[in-house]
Amino acid sequence: MKTILNPGKSEWTKALKRPVQKTKEIEKIVKPIMRKVKRSGDKALKKFALEYDHVQIKNLLVSLEEIKKARELVDPQLKEAIQVAKDNIEKFHAAQASPELKMEVMEGVTCMRRSVPIQRVGLYIPGGTAPLFSTVLMLGVPANYAGCEEIILCTPPDKDGNIHPAILYTADLIGIDKIVKAGGAQAVAAMTFGTESVPKVDKIFGPGNQYVTAAKQLAVKKGVAIDMPAGPSEVLVYADETAIPAFVAADLLSQAEHGVDSQVVLVTTTEKFAKKVLKEVEEQLETLPRKDIAKRALDNSVAVIMGNQAKALELINDYAPEHLIICVENEEEAVNSIINAGSVFIGNYTPESAGDYASGTNHTLPTYGYARNYSGVSLDSFFKKITYQKITEKGIQKLGPTIEIMAANELLDAHKNAVSIRLQYLKEKK
Amino acid sequence: MKTILNPGKSEWTKALKRPVQKTKEIEKIVKPIMRKVKRSGDKALKKFALEYDHVQIKNLLVSLEEIKKARELVDPQLKEAIQVAKDNIEKFHAAQASPELKMEVMEGVTCMRRSVPIQRVGLYIPGGTAPLFSTVLMLGVPANYAGCEEIILCTPPDKDGNIHPAILYTADLIGIDKIVKAGGAQAVAAMTFGTESVPKVDKIFGPGNQYVTAAKQLAVKKGVAIDMPAGPSEVLVYADETAIPAFVAADLLSQAEHGVDSQVVLVTTTEKFAKKVLKEVEEQLETLPRKDIAKRALDNSVAVIMGNQAKALELINDYAPEHLIICVENEEEAVNSIINAGSVFIGNYTPESAGDYASGTNHTLPTYGYARNYSGVSLDSFFKKITYQKITEKGIQKLGPTIEIMAANELLDAHKNAVSIRLQYLKEKK
Repeated sequence: MKTILNPGKSEWTKALKRPVQKTKEIEKIVKPIMRKVKRSGDKALKKFALEYDHVQIKNLLVSLEEIKKARELVDPQLKEAIQVAKDNIEKFHAAQASPELKMEVMEGVTCMRRSVPIQRVGLYIPGGTAPLFSTVLMLGVPANYAGCEEIILCTPPDKDGNIHPAILYTADLIGIDKIVKAGGAQAVAAMTFGTESVPKVDKIFGPGNQYVTAAKQLAVKKGVAIDMPAGPSEVLVYADETAIPAFVAADLLSQAEHGVDSQVVLVTTTEKFAKKVLKEVEEQLETLPRKDIAKRALDNSVAVIMGNQAKALELINDYAPEHLIICVENEEEAVNSIINAGSVFIGNYTPESAGDYASGTNHTLPTYGYARNYSGVSLDSFFKKITYQKITEKGIQKLGPTIEIMAANELLDAHKNAVSIRLQYLKEKK
Repeated sequence: MKTILNPGKSEWTKALKRPVQKTKEIEKIVKPIMRKVKRSGDKALKKFALEYDHVQIKNLLVSLEEIKKARELVDPQLKEAIQVAKDNIEKFHAAQASPELKMEVMEGVTCMRRSVPIQRVGLYIPGGTAPLFSTVLMLGVPANYAGCEEIILCTPPDKDGNIHPAILYTADLIGIDKIVKAGGAQAVAAMTFGTESVPKVDKIFGPGNQYVTAAKQLAVKKGVAIDMPAGPSEVLVYADETAIPAFVAADLLSQAEHGVDSQVVLVTTTEKFAKKVLKEVEEQLETLPRKDIAKRALDNSVAVIMGNQAKALELINDYAPEHLIICVENEEEAVNSIINAGSVFIGNYTPESAGDYASGTNHTLPTYGYARNYSGVSLDSFFKKITYQKITEKGIQKLGPTIEIMAANELLDAHKNAVSIRLQYLKEKK
């Protein structure tokens, strides 16, 4: 981890440069995968499972038998933990529901807005080094609470063709309809086009590697919506002398262990404090099973010393971190000044892991600077908002002339006529 | 307009096929335009203004002088109409504000969510055949109400290098900071990369032709967000014998005059009613100044006779119309059964023009079937929602073990450590 002292504004972008995403090269690999799945459906999914997951899949869909078995295999302690997390996530997401909005904006003109669940959603759960059942909760709980009619989950099988029992158990607990043994770009393609086993969906959610990300971007061109664009995960910790260096170090490392391209930033007020934290990072690093990954992630990472809080906050908003931990004396001012961040963790006892698993906030968050213009996944991500209007005879008589004048000035006479013909009719009716 | 009698479900897609979008060909033209603007900034914008708008632009930014002049040029009656529309739009969008959400999900674990305005937004207002000051209202009013720090408006100049006074007047009324004389893909490029005159923005809004749409899609790849993907505008009118044929015809025509690729669909219960409507369409068409455009749009359009309401509603939800007019006896059942639509217009006295201009709902809506997975523009479109959590000593003691178990089971030990180190510290502190 490099240390940078009081960088000027012009140096910020370079100092906090994120790892480069090789979109074009990846797209070239992903496009033919998408095409093949579109053309050959299940057959292509099985072929890719053999090629990439090194397993011969008979049934792409997880059976009831497999789910039953998973229920037995998951440790009761873990079941209890999943339940606690689920309850918190459900509580906080349920509170996000937008009630129906109905108002008479002027006499006889009533406008309304309702949230209607997206019918078919697809959740992608990555395989790889960690069985991410927490992501099943983060996507499945709000999807189910929103009332999406069909919830499909795709996740790659292991070398024996199985899905990790904790993933199956969690999906079943939420009531997910269909679990498909498919990973990578091919899974995204299956949900985009539909196959014999996998229904075509309206929106695809979930994290993934660069192939999955590229496939999701291509899915958008085919009319499917996605949760948000994605890049590698990241945390920025903003801490001063009131923070405990060992805690800060642990938080930095918890992000660093995600992947070699994870980015970890410390913004602090004095060199002395930064040194304490970096010393702790080195010590704690040695004890970690995923030490090699974390070490490489730390190579991309920096500690920035900023003389005053105003400058520090400006830098943070400029970077727009996915996860932001704030642990400073003047905490309230700092929190209220944040305008670009995915999720914010406040104080000495709020590690990022809390939000990753169980505090109730969603862990699917905008990375790579997208916190400037995207929100994390929320209950709303599973809804469309439809607007309605109903105008009475009196209402059109009142509002009609306004519409007529505006339409005429936009040179859209048929728009005007649609009002005039009604006003004329009402005049004659009298 | 073709009439189709009781099509089976398998025939729906073909019967209601939307005009094809030639994305690839368009992208090939748009990419070099984007590159040139990125490289040469204002110079490129001026070059493209000469090439596409046939005008030599000295100052890309509209001056205060020009705005003053616009204020004088706009007719007082139109000013009044714009004010009425603005008030309604502001009222209905203000009511959409999400209050701060704060809840203690369990003892010592507080989660929060706040709406924070997107800092810099760019509004694109098409030029072409109609001066769309109504779109300035639809995008500018919520942007301003949300509190976006910087609002940029780009719109192409006419052959004399001017912007239509009604557009300038409306933009000024809302308080838009910067109005840029630039149109097409080059305007989108300017807002994506920034030029000497045009600031780089975080999110781009607004309709446009296929070049603008393609440029917006490319902007997404550069980290800019967009309101939604776009296709040609469309209306579906669902009407039975309780509707007035002349009104229905006027509504169909008001959509048809938008552009030759607009799509217009009538779903009704009897052939007799359809015939009445089509006869009215032909008669009213003759009186329209934009008759030729409307005529060509009607060539893409169909009347579908559906025997019963359930089937009719299924077809409508399958099509997912941008605008949906419902004018049937069993109105409430119909309205409540709609799950895919942009905006719904209810009853004999609610023409689509009402929502296009002045009822208060937004007219920037998902076209081309995107109503399945996207919402129209709303106040929320100008916000990010940031989540926060704060955990107390007691809170981490309660929730900590849950996080530890979950992290350990996901094989993410550093995630676990971030909690364990805090629990250990609290134990020793006692």
